[in-house]
Amino acid sequence: MDYQKRIKKLQEKLRRKKVDALLVSQPENRRYLCGYRSGDHGIGESSGLLLVTARGKVYLLTDFRFKLQAQQDVPWAEVVLYPKGVMRLLNRLLPELAITSLAFESDYTLYSVADKLSTTLGKKGIKMVPTNGLVETMREIKDEQEINLIRKAVRLNEAVFTDIHNALSRYSTEIDIALAIETTMRRKGAEKPSFSTIVASGANGALPHAVPGNSALAQNGSLTIDMGLILDGYCSDMTRNLVVGKPDQRYLELHRLVRRAQLAGAAAIRAGARCSDVDKAARDVIADAGYGEYFGHSLGHGVGLAVHEEPRLSTRSNKILKAGMVVTVEPGIYIPGWGGIRLENMYVVREDGSENLNSDTTWLDL
Amino acid sequence: MDYQKRIKKLQEKLRRKKVDALLVSQPENRRYLCGYRSGDHGIGESSGLLLVTARGKVYLLTDFRFKLQAQQDVPWAEVVLYPKGVMRLLNRLLPELAITSLAFESDYTLYSVADKLSTTLGKKGIKMVPTNGLVETMREIKDEQEINLIRKAVRLNEAVFTDIHNALSRYSTEIDIALAIETTMRRKGAEKPSFSTIVASGANGALPHAVPGNSALAQNGSLTIDMGLILDGYCSDMTRNLVVGKPDQRYLELHRLVRRAQLAGAAAIRAGARCSDVDKAARDVIADAGYGEYFGHSLGHGVGLAVHEEPRLSTRSNKILKAGMVVTVEPGIYIPGWGGIRLENMYVVREDGSENLNSDTTWLDL
Repeated sequence: MDYQKRIKKLQEKLRRKKVDALLVSQPENRRYLCGYRSGDHGIGESSGLLLVTARGKVYLLTDFRFKLQAQQDVPWAEVVLYPKGVMRLLNRLLPELAITSLAFESDYTLYSVADKLSTTLGKKGIKMVPTNGLVETMREIKDEQEINLIRKAVRLNEAVFTDIHNALSRYSTEIDIALAIETTMRRKGAEKPSFSTIVASGANGALPHAVPGNSALAQNGSLTIDMGLILDGYCSDMTRNLVVGKPDQRYLELHRLVRRAQLAGAAAIRAGARCSDVDKAARDVIADAGYGEYFGHSLGHGVGLAVHEEPRLSTRSNKILKAGMVVTVEPGIYIPGWGGIRLENMYVVREDGSENLNSDTTWLDL
Repeated sequence: MDYQKRIKKLQEKLRRKKVDALLVSQPENRRYLCGYRSGDHGIGESSGLLLVTARGKVYLLTDFRFKLQAQQDVPWAEVVLYPKGVMRLLNRLLPELAITSLAFESDYTLYSVADKLSTTLGKKGIKMVPTNGLVETMREIKDEQEINLIRKAVRLNEAVFTDIHNALSRYSTEIDIALAIETTMRRKGAEKPSFSTIVASGANGALPHAVPGNSALAQNGSLTIDMGLILDGYCSDMTRNLVVGKPDQRYLELHRLVRRAQLAGAAAIRAGARCSDVDKAARDVIADAGYGEYFGHSLGHGVGLAVHEEPRLSTRSNKILKAGMVVTVEPGIYIPGWGGIRLENMYVVREDGSENLNSDTTWLDL
């Protein structure tokens, strides 16, 4: 990855905003800008902050525990430790660097932290400047190198799913399947799941974010598997719906309906299309069939270093799609007491349409 | 759990602070107060907010995806959905409830969210009040029912470790062991790991937060396993250090040294002790042996619904231990190029000392 190019682009933005530096706290933004692979254990436990100055060097601020990893991943940045906390380090380092205005990421900085930074650094004449989206907007559009990495993640995702699907008769509970999926993906080289694997059998399928349980799989009922993985930093996200045993007529009808909605959504994707229009293209198919009230979430979301990122394919998003964006298309129908069906593929937005990153589409057409 | 008692205690605090309600966003605080089991996918993707009014009802605000789970887990609260976002709901609901001052958790609210709440609700005459620690301080001291749940989590943790330890010759890489641990814990009923399992072989042991890798385990080198799980919401956290093959003299000496430091730390625990003094009791043992510079992190941390919570056993913490707190004691020595040794048990603070929640202490005494 050309990290220097990304840094330079960000530095131009900082100079245009007339700030001396940006403190990058959001972990995917951090990884995007410098390749540092350590993750955070939640927002309260950071594995480091990237300080990008507008006209000078880049500093990776971290603590003792991550020193070796930081030096290994980002040999071109200066790794600075904060044995007594990041506040003390900034209080010393920023005046040394003659920084008088420090931008921070308001979408990934706690109110209490921003407040403390403001008070502490204010005494040294340093002004805190809330910003948002400076790096996220860069991340929205993927270059071909990134799309290739995402393609690899999607392929691995499909390989794992195929393994599990072929051996489905071996598993007797939702948890069995979820564990097999997560173990297989890691054996095949994934860093980790991109989110907690969802395996929902029978009526559980009516909960879009069901937690896998220990009871026996429903026979002749629907089974929803929503799984994703992270490979070399990039995420996949895919949902398949199938039946253990013999599908009934209603299942077949609804599966076809959801699939038609998915194809309609995908067909609406192209550079220049409005996100809400893509959502509407799929939603109309489900609504026209009388199931509108059972599709309660957005049609899709961007995927990249984060599994959920901009743009959102939602009724509320006026954003315009651009070539190089990567989005999911995942319509669903959820009927309390009966179950649910959701189908999800990933698409690259191209100038003249979309590229489906998933390949196993045939079996979806029941 | 007696959720009503916890809510009442919080409501008293709110009345003392002269605020009309608290918006609880921190997921463990939310679970502590009402038992809602859905987790968040990071701070930007909440599965719900708990609105606790100072004199009235409790509302669980969530979206379509979590409706059934919310109603199932918290039948006594009013579940309110926000199909058009939480901001719109609050803008309608708070005036209906005659709320004019709304406290929020500044340690788990993004700057951008607090800013938007302030602006939007300000127009309706509602004042936002930053608070911190209102629920966290309640969580610090565990009652016997909670301690029992933690005890069960620790026991399950040990059972999983024993299984893996007995079968160690089967595994050839760090990832193999990590996967076996995480699969075994979930098969035995754990919700999930409480953090990403650390398995560090040979020189990797010098990174306290090493990510398990795919290369062969170092023979006759040290192997650090740091693992935790969540059972019924409560966390365990345990580190063991062992050798695949034959330990050398240096390993044996350092293992004994770390163990002596751990016992010294544990012996310093009692209600009324200062956290920094407990840290010092263990740190002095390592420093006196000439290894002070190789022990770069704090001695321990609280464990409960979160795997890392207050109190911290650190040189920088002036907090006083109270009966019912549960803490880890985990000294370590990390030598770049050679490897590391860390030992971690969990202790309940009692009036007259501490109760070791771990039982397999004998084999630690090499």
